[in-house]
Amino acid sequence: MQFKFHMPTKAYFGTGCISQNSSELALLGKQALIVTGGHSARESGALTDICNELTALNIGYAVFDKVENNPSTDTVKAGGAEAKRIGADFIVGIGGGSPLDASKAVAVLAVNEIEPVELFTNKFTTKPLPIVAIPTTAGTGSEVTPYCILTRNDLQTKVSFGNADTFPSIAFLDPRYTESQPFGVTVNTAVDAFSHCLEGYLGKRRTPASDILALEGISLFGRCLGDLKAAKITYEHRENLLYMSMLGGVVISHTGTTIVHGAGYNLTYFKGIPHGKANGFLMTEYMRFNYDYARDRIDNVMKLLKMGNLDEFGEAMTDLLGEAPCLDEAEIAQYAAITMTQRSTATNIRPVAVTDIAEILRRI
Amino acid sequence: MQFKFHMPTKAYFGTGCISQNSSELALLGKQALIVTGGHSARESGALTDICNELTALNIGYAVFDKVENNPSTDTVKAGGAEAKRIGADFIVGIGGGSPLDASKAVAVLAVNEIEPVELFTNKFTTKPLPIVAIPTTAGTGSEVTPYCILTRNDLQTKVSFGNADTFPSIAFLDPRYTESQPFGVTVNTAVDAFSHCLEGYLGKRRTPASDILALEGISLFGRCLGDLKAAKITYEHRENLLYMSMLGGVVISHTGTTIVHGAGYNLTYFKGIPHGKANGFLMTEYMRFNYDYARDRIDNVMKLLKMGNLDEFGEAMTDLLGEAPCLDEAEIAQYAAITMTQRSTATNIRPVAVTDIAEILRRI
Repeated sequence: MQFKFHMPTKAYFGTGCISQNSSELALLGKQALIVTGGHSARESGALTDICNELTALNIGYAVFDKVENNPSTDTVKAGGAEAKRIGADFIVGIGGGSPLDASKAVAVLAVNEIEPVELFTNKFTTKPLPIVAIPTTAGTGSEVTPYCILTRNDLQTKVSFGNADTFPSIAFLDPRYTESQPFGVTVNTAVDAFSHCLEGYLGKRRTPASDILALEGISLFGRCLGDLKAAKITYEHRENLLYMSMLGGVVISHTGTTIVHGAGYNLTYFKGIPHGKANGFLMTEYMRFNYDYARDRIDNVMKLLKMGNLDEFGEAMTDLLGEAPCLDEAEIAQYAAITMTQRSTATNIRPVAVTDIAEILRRI
Repeated sequence: MQFKFHMPTKAYFGTGCISQNSSELALLGKQALIVTGGHSARESGALTDICNELTALNIGYAVFDKVENNPSTDTVKAGGAEAKRIGADFIVGIGGGSPLDASKAVAVLAVNEIEPVELFTNKFTTKPLPIVAIPTTAGTGSEVTPYCILTRNDLQTKVSFGNADTFPSIAFLDPRYTESQPFGVTVNTAVDAFSHCLEGYLGKRRTPASDILALEGISLFGRCLGDLKAAKITYEHRENLLYMSMLGGVVISHTGTTIVHGAGYNLTYFKGIPHGKANGFLMTEYMRFNYDYARDRIDNVMKLLKMGNLDEFGEAMTDLLGEAPCLDEAEIAQYAAITMTQRSTATNIRPVAVTDIAEILRRI
């Protein structure tokens, strides 16, 4: 038994958690840059809630709301410049994975004179500013991970960075903020969170502690899956999905992701398929590919999801997400080659060749 | 669903974990005070291992080995003075709960001009020195908690302090270090770790996340219990017990303990009964007292321990620990009154009156 366990983010979960724990903000400084996208921070009520608390605490702030889906290195460069301009003491990220990830890059760039491409070296002279992360989707888990995933047009894919200093200091997880998401986004992000638990549980870097958190996340997905397929969602489901997403974040902080994420980035980059949905399209064939290497674990996942076998699971995913795109052989070869450049192929429980990724992409 | 989740200690678990992760030490400074008791740090090999690493990293150190069982405020005062004298940048605690807890008090006193009695206010002007915690018993969980429990002769009991700054920065959990413990200590400390999981799982401050960790700890105890009763212990048991103990520490960092610990301190203070054993003597009656308030949970604990009911559990504890002491009515009244002054009565799932504690003590 050899493992590391570490969860440095102070996570506050529950309805009203920002106002109940706002004293934490006062410890971070007198000036904040809020990093967010155009919509969900406002529509969810999260932006209003945090601004009210900052004002009450006499903390100044500016809002940088230019984070697009799958943020580029240019965007985080602009965010870093804005943080410098206002003299930010800390960064507040609000939104789905894109703004939360961007807030980490901004926190680094605000205090280090480097180009965004140097973020991927994971070595920063000055410790990043503290980050407060407020998710408005239940999927990314980014609020409790050190990871920041940025789109690199030079490499034609998404690449991540992150070290022990890029964990958010505080996460506020209020299930109400996920209520304004369209149902489709709720489903896609839930599948992403499930994917974190699944890939952590089946991956090479799994640990005894990540396993118990992953299994709880998988059970929670199983409890919501039937209703999600029937397009029904209650507040209790919102709570469970946000909690699953947090657990998934803690899991991948320890295990990383594997080839579902690695190959899925291509579907997002080239086909514009939302991240969670891209993962969902790959999941069944991923488990089929790994079945002989993780039979007991995959059977256990099926049991927790109340599924008889992988075919039934595949049908459930199609019910939930629709049909996967058809890829031509040129696309398959290109995506498989790019996937092989990702670290995530090394963490798969079964050794992976480029032809294996191609075959998975062919079968989805 | 309302909860907080936070595990700021970087825990490295496994055989050889100090030497494999010694680069962490270099980040903490150039001078260390090692805080320990007279025996286990040396006998376990932990002291030699850490000194070798410190020397290799060119970090100076002194050894303060005066921590007694159930350390007093005088002892930690002397330790704080020694840390100041050598200009320590960080503290290394090695041992069972007593040295690990003492190392936290020393880390505070090294940089704050206060009397030990002021530790219990939990407010320190200067942030304590970083702490590296190396357990040599599988019980306390102190390596991953902020708690420091000291004996206060003025109050005739043990009292705790601890805040977000007294979590150890690093914990090295090497199961080999627990091998030199006598079998009786192994059993007593295992019962302590189990008690952390049990009290966390049944207590009022339980959270969804503490529950899954507690249940894993309870299962691990169930897996070892039969062999412990037969005085058999393998290296795999040592691993599982140390892991259970870590999980129990993470659990009580979130939930605190309840009346088992609160009442048990009296058996330790007045009767000299080791801490874990004292908890074990109280456990069966504690569950009986709470049964109507936590029936499903207690039944679940019995299932995970493969016990038919509380009577069978009580017999197993007697097999493991021997007979509890007989207390006279004067002792019962005194201990019950002292227990009621502890915060731990407030966290019990069933409201507790002084007569309830007296009845539990009468029945053990």
